[in-house]
Amino acid sequence: MTQTRRLAAILAADVAGYSRLIGADEEGTLNRLRVIRAEVVDPSIAQYRGRIVKTTGDGLLVEFVSVVDAMRCATEIQDAMAEGNAGIAAEKRIEFRMGINVGDVVVEDGDIFGDGVNVAARLEGLADPGGICVSARVQEDAAGKLDLTFEIWASRGSKTSPAL
Amino acid sequence: MTQTRRLAAILAADVAGYSRLIGADEEGTLNRLRVIRAEVVDPSIAQYRGRIVKTTGDGLLVEFVSVVDAMRCATEIQDAMAEGNAGIAAEKRIEFRMGINVGDVVVEDGDIFGDGVNVAARLEGLADPGGICVSARVQEDAAGKLDLTFEIWASRGSKTSPAL
Repeated sequence: MTQTRRLAAILAADVAGYSRLIGADEEGTLNRLRVIRAEVVDPSIAQYRGRIVKTTGDGLLVEFVSVVDAMRCATEIQDAMAEGNAGIAAEKRIEFRMGINVGDVVVEDGDIFGDGVNVAARLEGLADPGGICVSARVQEDAAGKLDLTFEIWASRGSKTSPAL
Repeated sequence: MTQTRRLAAILAADVAGYSRLIGADEEGTLNRLRVIRAEVVDPSIAQYRGRIVKTTGDGLLVEFVSVVDAMRCATEIQDAMAEGNAGIAAEKRIEFRMGINVGDVVVEDGDIFGDGVNVAARLEGLADPGGICVSARVQEDAAGKLDLTFEIWASRGSKTSPAL
């Protein structure tokens, strides 16, 4: 049986305005993304013991064994990206939106499934470019353990889960 | 560095009325506990990939990688205990009280620490003999994944954490 369950902190990330960036400069955008992955994203994920579950053209799904690790990784990446973007015109900036959730996920052949993953993806969709949107559980787990301030959002509409 | 963090489902268990049982029949109680550990508790923990963090005279602290595993293990042990106790006089029954919580715990030299562990121990103290008391988070994670009915308790007084 290759299907098991485990607790995981899940980070979903994508590039804001990816289609627009690619439309304006395909090769340049892909090259810059490659450099960002190699110099910023992947080293930070490795440092915080994250595992890249899958990548899409503009997205990443990463699991961590600890919520605190996931939060540290996400904030460090976003800080580094903001620094790197400082001298770049707004329309050329590569900025990530990130969502973090925690839950009991189903693991099958290295991939992860379940509500915990879906909520992370929905949170990512709510995040501002350069921002991180986390579930209430993540905020509770990180409270007092990280030097961060959280802005509280109410859940939006009936489609959001109680975990939001 | 031996200190890390990880997400864990934590099961705290103790024997209800342990002092009374030991006072009435020390050797018999210890022998029966040994048999229960070997035939019921330890095999179930192993089956659900639990790790015994520590044992005390009448207690156990176990961590699991999944909330669903922790719940399955606890309910199977309590079911087996109830079956074994069916023919035994009430005052001679060995019954466990169990508490289950989930959280981001600190791991140091194999031991686990933090709010997540403390809340599990407090939940155990609230459980009836033969019963399992879980936090709202555990109930949410297990909802729809296990064939169980939960009785909802409000948190008791100001000393209980939001996780209760």
